[in-house]
Amino acid sequence: MSQIQTNRKVYLQDKPRHVAREEFINNVTLTPEIENIRTNKALGRVTALPIFANISTPHYHASAMDGIAVRAENTYEAHEQRPLHLKKDSDFKYVDTGNPIPNEFNAVIIVEELQEIDAETVEIIVPATPWQNIRPVGEDVVCGEMILPQGHTLRPADLGALLAGGVQELPVVKKPKVAILPTGNELRQPGAPLEPGNIIEFNGTVFAGFVEEWGGDPLLSDITVDDPDHIRTAIEKGAEEADVIIINAGSSAGSKDYTYHVINELGEVYTHGIATRPGKPVILGEVKGKPIIGVPGYPVSAYLALEWFLRPLLYHYQGIQEPERETLKVRLGRRVVSNMGAEDFVRMNVGYVNGEFIANPLTRAAGVTMSMVRADGVLVVPPDSLGLEQGEEVEVELYKPVDALKKAVLFTGSHDLTIDIVSSLLRRRDVNRQVISSHVGSLAGLMAIRKGEAHVTGVHLLDPETETYNVPYIEKYLAGQQVVHIPFLKREQGWIVPKGNPLSINKIDDIVEKGGAYVNRQRGAGTRILFDSLLKQHSLTSEQIQGYEREMFSHLSVAAEVKEKENSVGLGVYSAAQTMGLDFIPVADENYDLVMTNSFYESDAGQQLMEVIRSTEFKQQVERLGGYKVVEAIKPNFFNE
Amino acid sequence: MSQIQTNRKVYLQDKPRHVAREEFINNVTLTPEIENIRTNKALGRVTALPIFANISTPHYHASAMDGIAVRAENTYEAHEQRPLHLKKDSDFKYVDTGNPIPNEFNAVIIVEELQEIDAETVEIIVPATPWQNIRPVGEDVVCGEMILPQGHTLRPADLGALLAGGVQELPVVKKPKVAILPTGNELRQPGAPLEPGNIIEFNGTVFAGFVEEWGGDPLLSDITVDDPDHIRTAIEKGAEEADVIIINAGSSAGSKDYTYHVINELGEVYTHGIATRPGKPVILGEVKGKPIIGVPGYPVSAYLALEWFLRPLLYHYQGIQEPERETLKVRLGRRVVSNMGAEDFVRMNVGYVNGEFIANPLTRAAGVTMSMVRADGVLVVPPDSLGLEQGEEVEVELYKPVDALKKAVLFTGSHDLTIDIVSSLLRRRDVNRQVISSHVGSLAGLMAIRKGEAHVTGVHLLDPETETYNVPYIEKYLAGQQVVHIPFLKREQGWIVPKGNPLSINKIDDIVEKGGAYVNRQRGAGTRILFDSLLKQHSLTSEQIQGYEREMFSHLSVAAEVKEKENSVGLGVYSAAQTMGLDFIPVADENYDLVMTNSFYESDAGQQLMEVIRSTEFKQQVERLGGYKVVEAIKPNFFNE
Repeated sequence: MSQIQTNRKVYLQDKPRHVAREEFINNVTLTPEIENIRTNKALGRVTALPIFANISTPHYHASAMDGIAVRAENTYEAHEQRPLHLKKDSDFKYVDTGNPIPNEFNAVIIVEELQEIDAETVEIIVPATPWQNIRPVGEDVVCGEMILPQGHTLRPADLGALLAGGVQELPVVKKPKVAILPTGNELRQPGAPLEPGNIIEFNGTVFAGFVEEWGGDPLLSDITVDDPDHIRTAIEKGAEEADVIIINAGSSAGSKDYTYHVINELGEVYTHGIATRPGKPVILGEVKGKPIIGVPGYPVSAYLALEWFLRPLLYHYQGIQEPERETLKVRLGRRVVSNMGAEDFVRMNVGYVNGEFIANPLTRAAGVTMSMVRADGVLVVPPDSLGLEQGEEVEVELYKPVDALKKAVLFTGSHDLTIDIVSSLLRRRDVNRQVISSHVGSLAGLMAIRKGEAHVTGVHLLDPETETYNVPYIEKYLAGQQVVHIPFLKREQGWIVPKGNPLSINKIDDIVEKGGAYVNRQRGAGTRILFDSLLKQHSLTSEQIQGYEREMFSHLSVAAEVKEKENSVGLGVYSAAQTMGLDFIPVADENYDLVMTNSFYESDAGQQLMEVIRSTEFKQQVERLGGYKVVEAIKPNFFNE
Repeated sequence: MSQIQTNRKVYLQDKPRHVAREEFINNVTLTPEIENIRTNKALGRVTALPIFANISTPHYHASAMDGIAVRAENTYEAHEQRPLHLKKDSDFKYVDTGNPIPNEFNAVIIVEELQEIDAETVEIIVPATPWQNIRPVGEDVVCGEMILPQGHTLRPADLGALLAGGVQELPVVKKPKVAILPTGNELRQPGAPLEPGNIIEFNGTVFAGFVEEWGGDPLLSDITVDDPDHIRTAIEKGAEEADVIIINAGSSAGSKDYTYHVINELGEVYTHGIATRPGKPVILGEVKGKPIIGVPGYPVSAYLALEWFLRPLLYHYQGIQEPERETLKVRLGRRVVSNMGAEDFVRMNVGYVNGEFIANPLTRAAGVTMSMVRADGVLVVPPDSLGLEQGEEVEVELYKPVDALKKAVLFTGSHDLTIDIVSSLLRRRDVNRQVISSHVGSLAGLMAIRKGEAHVTGVHLLDPETETYNVPYIEKYLAGQQVVHIPFLKREQGWIVPKGNPLSINKIDDIVEKGGAYVNRQRGAGTRILFDSLLKQHSLTSEQIQGYEREMFSHLSVAAEVKEKENSVGLGVYSAAQTMGLDFIPVADENYDLVMTNSFYESDAGQQLMEVIRSTEFKQQVERLGGYKVVEAIKPNFFNE
């Protein structure tokens, strides 16, 4: 029977993150265990005690070279003018590298310095010095010597030194076990059928990955339903089996958020709510002597919370230093707004354009896992800041090596599926080249080139007056700039409608007349400009179009939206309709072209990109998508050269 | 029957390393295989193809908050002055975070902005905007979108995005299998009994560790004897089972080095010998379509050869970028000599003293695995250089993070086993503190302090005139410098002799009279100064002492050497004798003291160190060693303050 008063109102704290962390690490009980493991299985493990050598290596005086062992004192008279003859066995013995030096000798003369006179005699002309070319006992490791201190993470060469020191088994810190408890009625295991309202349980897999990377041993549980009794049982089981417990989610203060109440009942809550965005509804506590972290359900919030609280805990448990992320000074390409009173964690793209690093914020929605996939780093805006201005220099914590960022190709512009193909082929040609693409639409793409925030953009901008594509826009928006215009693809735009075209949409008037719900694109998108010029041609106004105000940011998003509603219609490319299993009614052929800075065009990366888009393989893959015609012989146009 | 002409003279090439590497990577056949694995098992693996989403997430329009779903258009009149009442079901429905938005609604008002009037009615005072607080279909991942490009190493958050995109299984690059073939009659498996001439086979374990770290799957074979037929069979088996073969050793050009001949017979040799030191006798070739690397037997040479040739091969195979090591500009504490014509790879210690990074070379013997354990980085001296001068600024490739180097405590001076205890306890107190110790003797330790190359030194220097320890030397060698002298330990020095003291050594005269072979320490070592003053006291000369010229660098090395020879005798501390199971005849009690720079003494690290050496735990551990008396109340003496 649940004793929990879930109707009691709980308010979240606004505890500074560092205070919460210090309290947590200092309060919780941590009793690291030691286990003995075989040295050859110990890669990456952490020594629990200092390790001393059991034997010396070499364990005998060993010849360091192929040659003869001699007594140095007997060779002192050797001279180029007075060669010295030595007799086998009495004066010398042959030794190979690694052979023991016979007791009566104390030096080795290498084979290249010998003249063999006969089977029993060699001649030398240079005297030996005592102990030359001999590896004395313990040259490498001396018995009793400390090979490694405690708290050392074992690298391959360490294993060699341990085995050389006769250590076949050693005490290491047992990997801390971390129980991961996904909770929620709406959760379904990956692959299970999904109803509206169901969510795939993927956080657990991500958490397990973090635990592994941070040296722990993850125990991922089945899904627990939103019920205090079930949650209590799961936590109690976790406390028995593991050293640390992670529970996801129900960590906030809503009517169905039981986590706080259960932890409070079973143990102690140190913190409920921290002053960060995202990541606020975090619970830090202890249950039956085991640290427990309640993390929010939104993936990005959860990942950050684990990094802030679980990562230091696991490193602390293992007695090793928490690695620090590389940081980089960058210039802000856009303004970043922030609320007073909370630390903001803004995922950023970082690119290297015209000799400087430019950073732009990614979406800040805490539910968007792709923002973590795409992020090159994170910008931490302190609680006392209202934000940072465009052009300001800020420091970003990096998720990728600087070198990779420096070599990335920044594509910012209209979304087209062929850019993914370019990206793949470029990568195959040169593993260092990665295309980082952001889908902002054609006009914003041109602006990114103008502001030095991108190397390449993709545009399809119809000029209604001249009825030509792209060039009028380049002349207007990039006036005076050295850019290269690459005629790239012809592609079909058309109406994207549900399978079977239930409203029988064939032209723009049908949308108004048949009550279609239109799925629009954002301002500045080429498709939006095309739609607006169709409206004008047909003497329609945007007010007549239901749904005109809402904006989608890509062809695929339009198609995904159309799939949701029987009476909907969008404008977009064939491949997007096909991917979603929708119908497509062609409207116009348009020119989707690339525009790049002259300096990028002339760089290695630019020339590699040109090779890719001229390759047969690229053309074949594009034509397989359908709805495209490639430009057969691509001829760049140079502006303002 | 062997067809191999091992008597044909083979000469090693001197091919530049980069040339050999380019040729090798470009010549060998690499056919990476693809395997499909479960997403939840894919951490750290590399995508073999671009991965596209199978479903959208969310797959329905989901509420982003707890609240009510409404039709935005119906709320436009709400105002603080004119509250609007909404009726349940007709005007709104309650939704929790993650719930689907009913088809008739298009916005969510959060619970905090509602006033519940009765069970059927809520009041609002702010209008909703369309799509507010809704996560539209595909907000995170849109079906058909490329989630990851090929050649991407999977991080925890990537697994989340894949599962969110309905990807439960994905194509990754199969881990390249690397056959590791240890060869040599002298090799014995770790733990097997050792005769003189036997060597523990530990290279294979180290190689396997490297292969794992570089993304491969190591197949470590049993030991193959030095016989062309056996080697041929082992290589043929490796070529069948693995994608790459590593054979160790026999890669040089000696009479028993069969590797070159066998590879030449079975396939092709591209390179035999590169212009590096160490690492010269490397073989690069191909056998039955599989790349093969013959690496030298000396561990350091072998590790470097694998890094130069196997590492790029494995990364190339996987289609990912080879990570670059961090580099650091450092000042050379000592001169580094180098030979023309070969690249020199000098393992270095790097320390941060008085606000700058100072680097000193470690031993350059290629057989010393401990030099790889101790190294903080490597200095590459180009082939056209004769060496680098003390004080020169050079760039070092780092094996450790800069941060760890910055926090390390540099101990340079006389070797004493208690320094290992200090190191362990300091580490336990603060995981960031590591003691990097080099055993150079007392006088060299004082010089290291003088030159700003160390934070702390340990000295036991007898001034024969005043018969006092250490202070006269500090006054002489550190004149004018702000240093702190810490009276630390009294320790016994004595004769270290074989068990049972076969020569009955009791005083220094016995060594001369009974024909003892003396094991001496290096110039500047406190023990050497003690021995020299004993000689003088007893009116003996160094010429009368057999073995006086040869120098050992630590107490343990002296003891290890004594253990080798029935008639030998050394001078050293009790614990060294005990570790090696030798007898110990006390000679003198001496003062082993610490000297540190004033700035280090005042730093956090210095104060932590003082706490450690004053702790009960330290005193207990030291007294357990035997032969020591700790200074009860340590009182620092300040010089030139």
